[in-house]
Amino acid sequence: MKIAMLGSGFIARFYAESLHAQRRKDTLFTVYSRNPENAQRFSADFGLSHFTTNMEEAIAHPEVDVVLISLPNHLHEPAVAACAKYKKHVLCTKPLGRTAAEAKRMLSMVETAGIFGGYLEDLCYTPKFLKSLNSIQQGAIGKVLWTKSRETHPGPHSDWFWDKEQSGGGAIIDLACHCVEISRNYIGKNIRPLEVMCWAATQVHPIEAEDHAIGLVKYANGAIGQFEVSWTFRGGMDLRDEVMGTEGTIWINNFLRTGFEMFSTGKGGGYVAEKAESSSGWLFPVGDESHELGYPNMFTDMFEAIEKNRTPLESFYDGYVVNAILDAAFSSAKSKQWEPVQLDDWRGDATTEQSQTLVSFDDNHYLVKEEVLPNGDQVLILKDKKSGVVIQQKKQAAPSIGDQG
Amino acid sequence: MKIAMLGSGFIARFYAESLHAQRRKDTLFTVYSRNPENAQRFSADFGLSHFTTNMEEAIAHPEVDVVLISLPNHLHEPAVAACAKYKKHVLCTKPLGRTAAEAKRMLSMVETAGIFGGYLEDLCYTPKFLKSLNSIQQGAIGKVLWTKSRETHPGPHSDWFWDKEQSGGGAIIDLACHCVEISRNYIGKNIRPLEVMCWAATQVHPIEAEDHAIGLVKYANGAIGQFEVSWTFRGGMDLRDEVMGTEGTIWINNFLRTGFEMFSTGKGGGYVAEKAESSSGWLFPVGDESHELGYPNMFTDMFEAIEKNRTPLESFYDGYVVNAILDAAFSSAKSKQWEPVQLDDWRGDATTEQSQTLVSFDDNHYLVKEEVLPNGDQVLILKDKKSGVVIQQKKQAAPSIGDQG
Amino acid sequence: MKIAMLGSGFIARFYAESLHAQRRKDTLFTVYSRNPENAQRFSADFGLSHFTTNMEEAIAHPEVDVVLISLPNHLHEPAVAACAKYKKHVLCTKPLGRTAAEAKRMLSMVETAGIFGGYLEDLCYTPKFLKSLNSIQQGAIGKVLWTKSRETHPGPHSDWFWDKEQSGGGAIIDLACHCVEISRNYIGKNIRPLEVMCWAATQVHPIEAEDHAIGLVKYANGAIGQFEVSWTFRGGMDLRDEVMGTEGTIWINNFLRTGFEMFSTGKGGGYVAEKAESSSGWLFPVGDESHELGYPNMFTDMFEAIEKNRTPLESFYDGYVVNAILDAAFSSAKSKQWEPVQLDDWRGDATTEQSQTLVSFDDNHYLVKEEVLPNGDQVLILKDKKSGVVIQQKKQAAPSIGDQG
Amino acid sequence: MKIAMLGSGFIARFYAESLHAQRRKDTLFTVYSRNPENAQRFSADFGLSHFTTNMEEAIAHPEVDVVLISLPNHLHEPAVAACAKYKKHVLCTKPLGRTAAEAKRMLSMVETAGIFGGYLEDLCYTPKFLKSLNSIQQGAIGKVLWTKSRETHPGPHSDWFWDKEQSGGGAIIDLACHCVEISRNYIGKNIRPLEVMCWAATQVHPIEAEDHAIGLVKYANGAIGQFEVSWTFRGGMDLRDEVMGTEGTIWINNFLRTGFEMFSTGKGGGYVAEKAESSSGWLFPVGDESHELGYPNMFTDMFEAIEKNRTPLESFYDGYVVNAILDAAFSSAKSKQWEPVQLDDWRGDATTEQSQTLVSFDDNHYLVKEEVLPNGDQVLILKDKKSGVVIQQKKQAAPSIGDQG
Repeated sequence: MKIAMLGSGFIARFYAESLHAQRRKDTLFTVYSRNPENAQRFSADFGLSHFTTNMEEAIAHPEVDVVLISLPNHLHEPAVAACAKYKKHVLCTKPLGRTAAEAKRMLSMVETAGIFGGYLEDLCYTPKFLKSLNSIQQGAIGKVLWTKSRETHPGPHSDWFWDKEQSGGGAIIDLACHCVEISRNYIGKNIRPLEVMCWAATQVHPIEAEDHAIGLVKYANGAIGQFEVSWTFRGGMDLRDEVMGTEGTIWINNFLRTGFEMFSTGKGGGYVAEKAESSSGWLFPVGDESHELGYPNMFTDMFEAIEKNRTPLESFYDGYVVNAILDAAFSSAKSKQWEPVQLDDWRGDATTEQSQTLVSFDDNHYLVKEEVLPNGDQVLILKDKKSGVVIQQKKQAAPSIGDQG
Repeated sequence: MKIAMLGSGFIARFYAESLHAQRRKDTLFTVYSRNPENAQRFSADFGLSHFTTNMEEAIAHPEVDVVLISLPNHLHEPAVAACAKYKKHVLCTKPLGRTAAEAKRMLSMVETAGIFGGYLEDLCYTPKFLKSLNSIQQGAIGKVLWTKSRETHPGPHSDWFWDKEQSGGGAIIDLACHCVEISRNYIGKNIRPLEVMCWAATQVHPIEAEDHAIGLVKYANGAIGQFEVSWTFRGGMDLRDEVMGTEGTIWINNFLRTGFEMFSTGKGGGYVAEKAESSSGWLFPVGDESHELGYPNMFTDMFEAIEKNRTPLESFYDGYVVNAILDAAFSSAKSKQWEPVQLDDWRGDATTEQSQTLVSFDDNHYLVKEEVLPNGDQVLILKDKKSGVVIQQKKQAAPSIGDQG
Repeated sequence: MKIAMLGSGFIARFYAESLHAQRRKDTLFTVYSRNPENAQRFSADFGLSHFTTNMEEAIAHPEVDVVLISLPNHLHEPAVAACAKYKKHVLCTKPLGRTAAEAKRMLSMVETAGIFGGYLEDLCYTPKFLKSLNSIQQGAIGKVLWTKSRETHPGPHSDWFWDKEQSGGGAIIDLACHCVEISRNYIGKNIRPLEVMCWAATQVHPIEAEDHAIGLVKYANGAIGQFEVSWTFRGGMDLRDEVMGTEGTIWINNFLRTGFEMFSTGKGGGYVAEKAESSSGWLFPVGDESHELGYPNMFTDMFEAIEKNRTPLESFYDGYVVNAILDAAFSSAKSKQWEPVQLDDWRGDATTEQSQTLVSFDDNHYLVKEEVLPNGDQVLILKDKKSGVVIQQKKQAAPSIGDQG
Repeated sequence: MKIAMLGSGFIARFYAESLHAQRRKDTLFTVYSRNPENAQRFSADFGLSHFTTNMEEAIAHPEVDVVLISLPNHLHEPAVAACAKYKKHVLCTKPLGRTAAEAKRMLSMVETAGIFGGYLEDLCYTPKFLKSLNSIQQGAIGKVLWTKSRETHPGPHSDWFWDKEQSGGGAIIDLACHCVEISRNYIGKNIRPLEVMCWAATQVHPIEAEDHAIGLVKYANGAIGQFEVSWTFRGGMDLRDEVMGTEGTIWINNFLRTGFEMFSTGKGGGYVAEKAESSSGWLFPVGDESHELGYPNMFTDMFEAIEKNRTPLESFYDGYVVNAILDAAFSSAKSKQWEPVQLDDWRGDATTEQSQTLVSFDDNHYLVKEEVLPNGDQVLILKDKKSGVVIQQKKQAAPSIGDQG
């Protein structure tokens, strides 16, 4: 496929490197930037046939099959509108909108125009994420009870991201969009997100937007999706996910501890890793950053979905749900209460059922716990189904000589 | 010192093993249990001179210098009352009370009687905790912005802990007491805890109390102390702390990943670690569980404090503050709002000051961020002190041949 | 490019999955297997246009640009001979030969025929390896003093690998070929390997070949390349590399600890990772095994090298050097002495210079060490350049009150 | 017990801190140093009753029960001789002697005098070591096939250690003594060490002794004990042990990765850990260094052994065996051959039996391997007991739709 890149900044370059690697057959055809120097430099760096400072020209070009939006958040909507106008498939960088209302308008545009709307949520395409999601879907950890997704680093690369008007917010809009969608996948996209509790503050930076936030999203089945996001973290980029299920646990570290450790006195060096803070001492490089961040898998899914006329793993609808959850998070940070997730357009399961799984020990008791103590005693903790009384049954271990000697 | 142990269950045995190890000079003299068999067995196992089924007899015994309360939560208050009556120094297992009101009465008893009241908060005495606290107090990570303490496992050992009446609650009263005090230490014990937001639910077990909870405690200086507690975790006992400061980060894993990894096909085996769930596959034993959980350091501090007539690192007053925070957590879990921490007796700093630290770049600008991009460009992000406009200053790197080849 | 696959076993399937993923433009055209069922099944599984039980037919097919040898070791030479006959570029799975003599004949064949000879040493293409090699080449850890590469697992997948005649040996020929080439890269391919000391034994399996071996390869610049290989390891596949340099250290874990940890009680499950031994308890899956094992990068380098008419990172010449080192290892395991590496055809640096880097403190002394002790004292350890006497200069720290309290 | 400390340097201080901590009942009574200032400073720092510059005076003092030798290696023998003369129990820092001959004389002295001779091999007393040894002795990992113990750091603290005459060697005498005894314990102290292969070199420092060495010790049961020691390591103190058994694996990290991670920009700081190289960037402090290095457990064992008149876990005899192995390592480094371990006085098992454990599949076949491949096929690899032919039995998995889609 031939791609029109809108934007030429940090994320556009990251995308381009992934697309033009590993003998992939899809190629960037043109790049748009309002700044002609940037457009030209990008075009030269990646060997494009064309560049332009006119966004519509890039989108409308007859050679272009699909448009890749790598623009500041406030420019997503006009760019999607232009794609709809020219009936070009569109892939949009996260977050889809600054608000659910904005995202919903973009969703309507692509659905009305009958074009493909791919949501570039890269962290739902990392190798570890995809494998862990598959394990969960196969039942390896039972029913998901809680997920935590954490993304913290010392702050974004581009100036516009620090301006609330252009970005739509701070760490929440920049980072929690990832975390929320990771949790949604683990808990199940059909499970409705009900309400959000969020704390947010501007702890360090001279900005209006929040540079630190923590939120809990409650789902219809009783599961909790937690996000922890910050632009105040020191030590690199912390990207971790955790999942607790009734039958197991998953811990993922995407960036800072991936099995690659280097100590350097500081001679030599160079670029170690995205958002690393130093080039001496103990360093934790990532082997293939682009792959560990999910770009190759993401583009493969998007282009295959277009060719096979199927929905991608992450669609504009997902982007809209994420924005609705973030809206509730912003509300909650202000109201200091749980706030409902406003979803006019919910396409998942209607049923709301918070089921607890109780294990019977015998006809009259539930099993609370079974255990072997260090001294060898066996302990059963049971609860009478009628009276609710908790009892303990203990079987003393055979004494061993010198046990406590 | 000669010690009277009240209780003979799991925690009493753990204490006894720590006390009678490493050629320590303090010794257990007597043990009280209402069950004569347990008292006798405990006494035999640890070589005590005396045992009894009468609590006051144990406390009042003239050879006893200090009393160690290892009883279910609802028996802490009467035990402290008896110690006050006989003017014996007392060490009480966490949590101090089931409520702040109960804790406050115990605090009054020891202060009125003029006896020593040590709060056995072992996780504030682990080797890693003490060293990290020292680093923070020396300024190694700057001002603390956020702490997270997590304690999750598959549920407690003793039956009474599953009964809300005796215990005072579920995972919050059992585990969050640790987490809250860890955070208080890191943030600073003089900083007043203001309010709490908490989610709690009974997700898995057939009990009334919560088996999973997450809470945020907001402090007067703007710092957040987060707790994550659960009796639904699978995979062992997860004891981790994290701290974010303006100048650094601390990550501690006390139990599941401490540099000891074992794979076993399952032949042989035996007791691997407290709350481990299996004895084959990859296992993560802890070298010296008692030491890693803080017992030796805790008893050393307590006995030295008694001898030197000083306050221990963890006192009954600390136990009271913790209970007040937990009370607010329980309230918030019900009200679904932030709830104030009710502290009638606050002995720390009065001032409330949420200071943000802004770094000036020059007379007219604050420094938002400074960075070197992967392509070598240098970027400064600045904010005009008057207009509030964010600007970006970029210095392009010298081009290198084949940069993006 | 269109590829003929020779072989349809475990490694052929692994290659095929890498080649037909991520929208790569090169495709498998035909597969050869002496077993018609296997050929047909492979062809169907990967959607090939053609399959055959005649090896020459596959190679000679006019649509085929490059041949990929995935056959047992003893069939590498005849396959390369056929490629030379039909002037088809050839990629050969490691090890190139069973002996250096065999490898050298294959090297001559491709050089005489003027065809491309790529050595499929995948572990020299893993993302972590390539990034660490780049750091070393930039000087991040100074001069390399020692490298260790370790590959151990519970034994290979295919029957022929357990037969010394077909494979050429046991764990050394299977695994040490990787380790030796990893070390050669880190130390520098221009540095001549001089001699080898090796221990090898058959500790567990009912086979003639060694199932465990450790070797040291000494290079002309004094560096040591260590290998540790085994088919007796329990717990999965252990793939670790370590490098010590004068200015730093590198530790890489390619498989068992890569930031992905899962606990499962065992319900659900399925395939976790290559050579994992269980599907319950703590498991350590790898996100994208194929990528972490280097296949995509390897094929990208090979095809680009063919197109650009350049040498790949790993060529038949490298395969020959590796075989020469392994020959010396086998000799040493028998003779119990260091054995010279026999390289008739050495194309690297001729000079042999084991330089030690001495740091002068002043005109009369070398600096041995500089240190601050825990009590704050500063210590300098110096050596007189003439007399050779080692002296210590100590500057006592200012006393602090309560230092040892 | 009352202790006379001989020496007042780095290790003496480390010992003293361990002994005077945690309310232990044994105390230092006097200290000897040839330098009166050092003796006086040490005595003041640790609150001793007495100090002297006359070694015999310290030993002979009537209040002294046991002597603790913390002197340079070349002074161990005269100190032990003096203890024998005055019939005082003696604990000697590792290595016991500079050579086996020296160690054997010391062993004779204590045995002739009838005094206690404890070998202060602290790393055989770390919490992780003791627990792992216990697991192995219980059979958790089957028969031990191979152990590796690694100790590397940037070089010792004291000047005399850099002088071969006083120390007896370099990294081998300083560090391999630990590694060898760790391996001996894991493999079994009754198993005779037969021969040693060792590489040693002076790669970096301006000294005569080796600053880097690797050795393999072969035991009578076929097990291999590997040591890796260096004074050239960058990044802190690397203390790792690995064990491979027929039924499992053990990996221990004693120092650099123990679950405590700190990032600091460098403000604040202070002493982080023994042999750490920096106080900014990512740091890996150890909670309680003394405990993680085994000192408390070591002294507890020693004093209890004296009181109970039993052999300690590490005795002078063990020190002698270690020296004999190191002697063989030095010989091998020169001869470039395996060298026999010369043990005139062997007190372990006489039998030499290198047993391989073969698993029968049925009457006619040994089981080589059993496996499930990624595509679901089951594979059995068997060897005919008579013909020796290796065969593969494969059971194809049921085809699944879209298996390779």
